[in-house]
Amino acid sequence: MNVGVIGTGMIGTEHVRRLTSRVAGARVTAVFDVDTDRAAGVAAVAGAAVHREGHDVIDDPAVDAVLIASPGDTHADLVLACVATGKPVLCEKPLATTSGAALKVVEAEMTYGRRLVQVGFMRRYDVGYLTVKSALAAGRVGEPLLVHCVHRNVSVPPAFTGDMSLTDSLVHEVDASRWLLGQEIVAATVVEVPHSPLASPQLRDPRLVLLESERGIVIDAEVFVNARYGYDVRCEVVGTTGTVALEAPTTGAVALDGGRVQALPMDWQARFAQAYVDELQDWVDAVHRGTATGPSAWDGYAATAVAEAAVASRGSRTMVDLAERPALYSGESSP
Amino acid sequence: MNVGVIGTGMIGTEHVRRLTSRVAGARVTAVFDVDTDRAAGVAAVAGAAVHREGHDVIDDPAVDAVLIASPGDTHADLVLACVATGKPVLCEKPLATTSGAALKVVEAEMTYGRRLVQVGFMRRYDVGYLTVKSALAAGRVGEPLLVHCVHRNVSVPPAFTGDMSLTDSLVHEVDASRWLLGQEIVAATVVEVPHSPLASPQLRDPRLVLLESERGIVIDAEVFVNARYGYDVRCEVVGTTGTVALEAPTTGAVALDGGRVQALPMDWQARFAQAYVDELQDWVDAVHRGTATGPSAWDGYAATAVAEAAVASRGSRTMVDLAERPALYSGESSP
Amino acid sequence: MNVGVIGTGMIGTEHVRRLTSRVAGARVTAVFDVDTDRAAGVAAVAGAAVHREGHDVIDDPAVDAVLIASPGDTHADLVLACVATGKPVLCEKPLATTSGAALKVVEAEMTYGRRLVQVGFMRRYDVGYLTVKSALAAGRVGEPLLVHCVHRNVSVPPAFTGDMSLTDSLVHEVDASRWLLGQEIVAATVVEVPHSPLASPQLRDPRLVLLESERGIVIDAEVFVNARYGYDVRCEVVGTTGTVALEAPTTGAVALDGGRVQALPMDWQARFAQAYVDELQDWVDAVHRGTATGPSAWDGYAATAVAEAAVASRGSRTMVDLAERPALYSGESSP
Amino acid sequence: MNVGVIGTGMIGTEHVRRLTSRVAGARVTAVFDVDTDRAAGVAAVAGAAVHREGHDVIDDPAVDAVLIASPGDTHADLVLACVATGKPVLCEKPLATTSGAALKVVEAEMTYGRRLVQVGFMRRYDVGYLTVKSALAAGRVGEPLLVHCVHRNVSVPPAFTGDMSLTDSLVHEVDASRWLLGQEIVAATVVEVPHSPLASPQLRDPRLVLLESERGIVIDAEVFVNARYGYDVRCEVVGTTGTVALEAPTTGAVALDGGRVQALPMDWQARFAQAYVDELQDWVDAVHRGTATGPSAWDGYAATAVAEAAVASRGSRTMVDLAERPALYSGESSP
Repeated sequence: MNVGVIGTGMIGTEHVRRLTSRVAGARVTAVFDVDTDRAAGVAAVAGAAVHREGHDVIDDPAVDAVLIASPGDTHADLVLACVATGKPVLCEKPLATTSGAALKVVEAEMTYGRRLVQVGFMRRYDVGYLTVKSALAAGRVGEPLLVHCVHRNVSVPPAFTGDMSLTDSLVHEVDASRWLLGQEIVAATVVEVPHSPLASPQLRDPRLVLLESERGIVIDAEVFVNARYGYDVRCEVVGTTGTVALEAPTTGAVALDGGRVQALPMDWQARFAQAYVDELQDWVDAVHRGTATGPSAWDGYAATAVAEAAVASRGSRTMVDLAERPALYSGESSP
Repeated sequence: MNVGVIGTGMIGTEHVRRLTSRVAGARVTAVFDVDTDRAAGVAAVAGAAVHREGHDVIDDPAVDAVLIASPGDTHADLVLACVATGKPVLCEKPLATTSGAALKVVEAEMTYGRRLVQVGFMRRYDVGYLTVKSALAAGRVGEPLLVHCVHRNVSVPPAFTGDMSLTDSLVHEVDASRWLLGQEIVAATVVEVPHSPLASPQLRDPRLVLLESERGIVIDAEVFVNARYGYDVRCEVVGTTGTVALEAPTTGAVALDGGRVQALPMDWQARFAQAYVDELQDWVDAVHRGTATGPSAWDGYAATAVAEAAVASRGSRTMVDLAERPALYSGESSP
Repeated sequence: MNVGVIGTGMIGTEHVRRLTSRVAGARVTAVFDVDTDRAAGVAAVAGAAVHREGHDVIDDPAVDAVLIASPGDTHADLVLACVATGKPVLCEKPLATTSGAALKVVEAEMTYGRRLVQVGFMRRYDVGYLTVKSALAAGRVGEPLLVHCVHRNVSVPPAFTGDMSLTDSLVHEVDASRWLLGQEIVAATVVEVPHSPLASPQLRDPRLVLLESERGIVIDAEVFVNARYGYDVRCEVVGTTGTVALEAPTTGAVALDGGRVQALPMDWQARFAQAYVDELQDWVDAVHRGTATGPSAWDGYAATAVAEAAVASRGSRTMVDLAERPALYSGESSP
Repeated sequence: MNVGVIGTGMIGTEHVRRLTSRVAGARVTAVFDVDTDRAAGVAAVAGAAVHREGHDVIDDPAVDAVLIASPGDTHADLVLACVATGKPVLCEKPLATTSGAALKVVEAEMTYGRRLVQVGFMRRYDVGYLTVKSALAAGRVGEPLLVHCVHRNVSVPPAFTGDMSLTDSLVHEVDASRWLLGQEIVAATVVEVPHSPLASPQLRDPRLVLLESERGIVIDAEVFVNARYGYDVRCEVVGTTGTVALEAPTTGAVALDGGRVQALPMDWQARFAQAYVDELQDWVDAVHRGTATGPSAWDGYAATAVAEAAVASRGSRTMVDLAERPALYSGESSP
């Protein structure tokens, strides 16, 4: 299976490396990046051709499937082109920067008649999240009532401003909650909280957001992208008879200087390294089978719609303006 | 030091046992309970006299200090009587069932001119909470921004109805937050969440409450009094450079049947057994020194005022109607 | 109950403080120490008389019970004097520096006809050890087969030399193992291991010792008194169907600088603070009831006998030369 | 890279599945198994040819590299054939059932002049062990003095008898210790311990073994193959200034029925699933580079030699009869 990769920044380069050296059944045969030198460097290692435009990668007859890791505002257009040519595509999140654009992808895929699109919500491949999911599915904690989420980064680059902690970070909590609960998120409220003086003034940080599922489950999500101490993603689902929690993975401890220390990852690459490999393997396997699996265009649309509602809310509850879900997107792992 | 105990129900009886057999420097010489037999049984073990009314205990010239563990609606009146006679008093929470009544106690104590009243917020004596408090005081996690609280009981008796999870349970989270942060709580919002079908229909359970401190720190508190699996009290203070968390105390684990199991307490008596002893010892020591320490009448008033605001709020933020704090109640462990 | 305290060094002074301010039903009325000033200082705080000799404390008619915290080589003689006068005595470990001297105490108590002596193995009062004990008693892990023990100190004073890690530290593991298993230790082997360059050359440190119980259970015990990072006492009993472990007690964690840190105690005073209080309360309660409880003279003798065997062993197994256990010392908490 | 697989029992079949669907850069083109049907089934899935003998796989000109997962007593002969033909080989442990036979492989590889052989000690690829290794390399706990190892299986098949817990299970502890410490094991002592009544009488279980490294570090290893409660592999290296521990990996917990439960794996497939994938990927990558990496024939020889010494020891220390290590096998990850 020949993969064309659009975007060879940090994430795209890592994806190329994984497809080349950690995943069975795929090779990278074409790449594009606005930075031609960067693209050439990646292509040389992978033994791939360098194209002059993203669309050339999609149109390349030798390319069987496309991986999109270019900037978010280019995603929707490129995914639509993939659907138009009938090529399977794995698109990094967000699927689109507006819910309207995301919905166009959903509609195009509906017209095509079967799924071609997988969206890069890699947490669904993390062994910790999978463990929570199966505990819920087995009814080990009864019926879910509440979810507590924490999403903390050490820091963010200066370009990370405005509402990006909602549109770029919170979306992971949205998708994880939808997937764990098997329910859509129908309302969002951003709660006013103090801002860390260590965060840039253009960025409100931390954020505390209340989400509400279609059957009334409330998810409180802390997103704190300047938490300094580590990259920490946690989730506790509170059920009627118990709770199930995702915590930082551990493999042991060091006893040192008066403390028993469990190391924390410092970034998402370290935390979700294996999840990214498993995501790609799952995608490659599905393409080989002529199907698509994992997070769908609908999931990408829904996450963007919820983030939009969160941005619009300012201390008051905002309903998510969600389209009717087409049958194409039903299934056990989606609401 | 001769202690008179008013109320020998479960809590009062346990307090008599502790004063008699686990605390230095005190003995119980007088008791009262509406259930005369129960009072007589406790008195016999402790070698104490049985009085016919609560006020008789206070007026007993052989009684040096009073412990009140009678039903909550009798507290304010009894504490006022103690203050009127100048006798030190440890009053189980709540200090009063309304903030107005609690404020009368504050005013009486102000008139008396020095502190006589300690309120039974025993968590301030728990080694776990003390560890969090000292980590914050040492600045180990920077400036606090957010607090996440969890308060779960296995179940509650049938009489536990209406807003008792706010007036009886949430108050512990309120006092703990005020004490840890050294700030008053100025606003409360109850968030609508689903109710557990395992809880009685007259009781909304769980509750999710957002509290706001005077300097804007937001505390989200889950109170779930039918959590079934255990008595679980947790608290995480998120600071600018790290977080400090209170979790269920552990002393080890059992490896059994595919799991590594850390036992949880099943009720507050087990969880806070030592905190109660240390609370009483601290009270007895302070009385011996002619002073009062620990949670004050003001703390009791503030907790009740916040619970009132929480009850009044229904999805919208309600400001706490808080009096000006008198200088008598300043100090390092109070806001 | 009037307690006379012999020895007001660090441990004795702490015991006086606890008896005075943390334990119900006792007061300290007489003290002795070779350092007269130190004794006077402690006596002043407690309101006690200062005696000129240890034996004067025992002979003081106002003294109801005696606590011995003087140097180890004075213990046996003082305890014998207590037994001779029929006064209850709590003796810090070791009961005696030789098993022969310890056996004399046992014989004297036998002649007296009932127990008067409690030995200061405070671990039996630690909530962690009690949890392990009750898990074993409940058969939660089946039949015990192996025990892994770890005993680590941050460092020891320069006077701590020779075989003191066996005679002073290992004895705690011996007593804890005997008590947990309800079996005598019948053999000991010291395994040659490398010595820490951070320990004094006169002290072999760490030590690894294999103990064998009367029914063949093997206990491996690491004693490392210059472990630097913290005071860490652990124990895992491996049973036929599971294991039960004592670990450092925790009440939460700090997330900081790339790690989740659970603080460790730095010395035994911090680690076993509450166990010491509970030990004293249990002793005082027993004296009030006219009985003795807790670790007995036999337990003190057995621990010393095992330590002697360990000292004698050098890479080869040495049988413990243990007397026949008299019926006086049978009971649920002793082998 | 075309891989030929000899032995398609449980382990071999899993390896074929991994090479086919989880590893980049390899495919399985030839298989052999004594059970022809089983071989045919595996071959059909992988699209591989079925050979009539193991040696036919090695001789197949289309096979670039060989994976040996047949019974242990066939290993040495097959590996020697691989070396004779100059084909890279990944051999499941043990390399040979006797140290003499293993040494012949070492000598053959020496004669060949460069490494062709990797032995399947997959723990070296486990993220937990790698974390311990890097903590030691970074000197975080000072100089190692002691190692405590635990190796527990739920149960073993009836055929697991005699000294297999030494020759099949202990060897993992031997290799892990050698690799972590960078030192050879030079002596072994099996300590007599009670046998679990739940284990088959032909199998002594558990075992407690003391190993000694060339610089005197002592490793105590418990091997308990009928531990019932879970598959539990642990390791704590005690250094001069701290300790570093490998524990069961966790990703969270379930709070249920009075306990906080961290799930344990029930077998080695679950525990080391990712380590096996990473082991194979590393092997495939090395073959592509024309080199060999990971555990060497020398490592296989040394583990067998130590197991032989352990079997020979019965309560007394037995020196390992170890050959001089050839320069071919030096390097950072081997002693």
